Amino acid sequence: MKASVYLGKEQVELQDLEVPERGVDEVLIQVSRAGLCGTDLHIYQGHMDQRVQTPLVMGHEMCGEIVEAPSGSGVQVGDRVVVEPTVWCGTCPACRRGHRHICQNLNFLGIDSPGAFQAYWNVPVDRLHKVPEGLSNEAGALIEPLAVAVHDVRRAGVELGDRAVVIGGGPIGMLVAMAARMNGAEVVISEINPFRIKKAKELGFEVVDPNAQDLVEVVERWTDGAGADLVFEVSGHPAGAKIMTELARVRGTICLVGVHAEPPSVDLQRFFWRELHLTGCRVYEPVDFERAIRIAASGAIDPTVLVTNTLPLGEAGRGFEQMMEGGDVMKVLLDCQA
Amino acid sequence: MKASVYLGKEQVELQDLEVPERGVDEVLIQVSRAGLCGTDLHIYQGHMDQRVQTPLVMGHEMCGEIVEAPSGSGVQVGDRVVVEPTVWCGTCPACRRGHRHICQNLNFLGIDSPGAFQAYWNVPVDRLHKVPEGLSNEAGALIEPLAVAVHDVRRAGVELGDRAVVIGGGPIGMLVAMAARMNGAEVVISEINPFRIKKAKELGFEVVDPNAQDLVEVVERWTDGAGADLVFEVSGHPAGAKIMTELARVRGTICLVGVHAEPPSVDLQRFFWRELHLTGCRVYEPVDFERAIRIAASGAIDPTVLVTNTLPLGEAGRGFEQMMEGGDVMKVLLDCQA
Repeated sequence: MKASVYLGKEQVELQDLEVPERGVDEVLIQVSRAGLCGTDLHIYQGHMDQRVQTPLVMGHEMCGEIVEAPSGSGVQVGDRVVVEPTVWCGTCPACRRGHRHICQNLNFLGIDSPGAFQAYWNVPVDRLHKVPEGLSNEAGALIEPLAVAVHDVRRAGVELGDRAVVIGGGPIGMLVAMAARMNGAEVVISEINPFRIKKAKELGFEVVDPNAQDLVEVVERWTDGAGADLVFEVSGHPAGAKIMTELARVRGTICLVGVHAEPPSVDLQRFFWRELHLTGCRVYEPVDFERAIRIAASGAIDPTVLVTNTLPLGEAGRGFEQMMEGGDVMKVLLDCQA
Repeated sequence: MKASVYLGKEQVELQDLEVPERGVDEVLIQVSRAGLCGTDLHIYQGHMDQRVQTPLVMGHEMCGEIVEAPSGSGVQVGDRVVVEPTVWCGTCPACRRGHRHICQNLNFLGIDSPGAFQAYWNVPVDRLHKVPEGLSNEAGALIEPLAVAVHDVRRAGVELGDRAVVIGGGPIGMLVAMAARMNGAEVVISEINPFRIKKAKELGFEVVDPNAQDLVEVVERWTDGAGADLVFEVSGHPAGAKIMTELARVRGTICLVGVHAEPPSVDLQRFFWRELHLTGCRVYEPVDFERAIRIAASGAIDPTVLVTNTLPLGEAGRGFEQMMEGGDVMKVLLDCQA
């Protein structure tokens, strides 16, 4: 079968591998669509070479159909599923407290063990979520990032009528904006990329380009001098870490979603002065997957609006290059059967 | 009457002033004891010259007796009181949301307008809390910092049996430690000053000198690899901002109490990775004063254990110098009638 294999910095290769052997508590999935995630891009760029072992089949945003399943497992051949790619140890302090999704020994499928960028994928049966017929494979491949957004917005504790700023209008920022809006918030997106600005406006959002306008001033005016109730820092950029504290109102909440590889300067005095909250947000819990599926299936949020192109499995590298070029690209999917 | 007046960097002078004229909604208090606070020290050192107007009578930790009061105001001559020194505007966005204690136009008595380092002080009647007979004037002068600690611990949301690290064992850190312990937490204090280490040990606390021991390792061992449930960053030092994220468990809470004049580096990646919370904590709400009074009056916490010396009003400058020298000093009180 075909598999896209990461070999080292900026090297992915289409290889012909054996179909994986299914373990006793696993299913075998024929993967239909898989999305390229920012984390996959980090791996592709070699930033995570200390964590990942090569050769690696990446990929954790996907949708597919079960072709083999253990009997009595609650799923059967023909079921269409998405995978919640977090395999926890069950025994570390975080697991014992119930925070298994951020287990201290987390095995993240597609990073720490083989992922979805292959024609067939073997996955523990307890990591599956069935998707309804009405949900397309494309939408299914976006359930994982939508679950991230649901998680972030749940962590934020949105109150009806809250005014929220989303810093960074990439795929996750856009899904966070859509989820926050669905949760009753008014949303402004801060973004500098013209293509993403256009996309966000098409989706009905107010957008501020902080290079063209004074974002703090815009938010002060919008909120009559109060500041934003919620700030989602999704950019992972030091400029985002700087401005997030300037945007939040007294007792406002900042949700930290973006990855800051280097510790940036943070205005802790502002946290003191305004009694701000900062809440780290990472991945999702099972409930977030369940909600993401319902939200996408009902059409309340259509995550496929973010898909800019679909490439055959063998062109994963081209997809990453497109993401790095930062042009007219939002979400790239792979057709894992092509 | 005598008043200690701040004139500029490291200059306080005992002056003979007129007894202040009481406004229609004010009482006149004969001040018994007043404490030197870290904020007063910042003013003394000239760090807040952009905010304060000289000449300034500083002081906001105090206890005294009412000598003049408007009729029908709920207090009367002879009542012993402490002052909650936060005068809010009532109309800014923070006030309109109910966060009046951190009003966006806060008038903080003793910083933005005259304070307690004088024989008599006129104060709005709605800023008073009566203290019971059994509470000494010395304990009364420590109600304000105890209210800070009550506020911080309430903001932390202590759960029974939580393990907490308090970074910085000065007066506020020590009161936070006592309040967290009273709230059912196990507490470790991180402190480098030998006098404060000794004091903390006398009060029954585990103390780690992070220059002598690896604090992270101690906490990892103490918590079986989980990390602390709560971290109170009271030091205001960049080293405190660095270590706070290393100490907290998955989904742990960091309470930011210390003032960080310059934005330090903060490991935001750790906030993401462990889904940490950061909560800024500033001053107090009326409920915190009420609780601080009850806690001190019942003897559950005796804040006077922190008093290292009491000086006559005219020696405020000497008190500040002692604090700057950082020797065997914890809380310095002024006798405002001496």
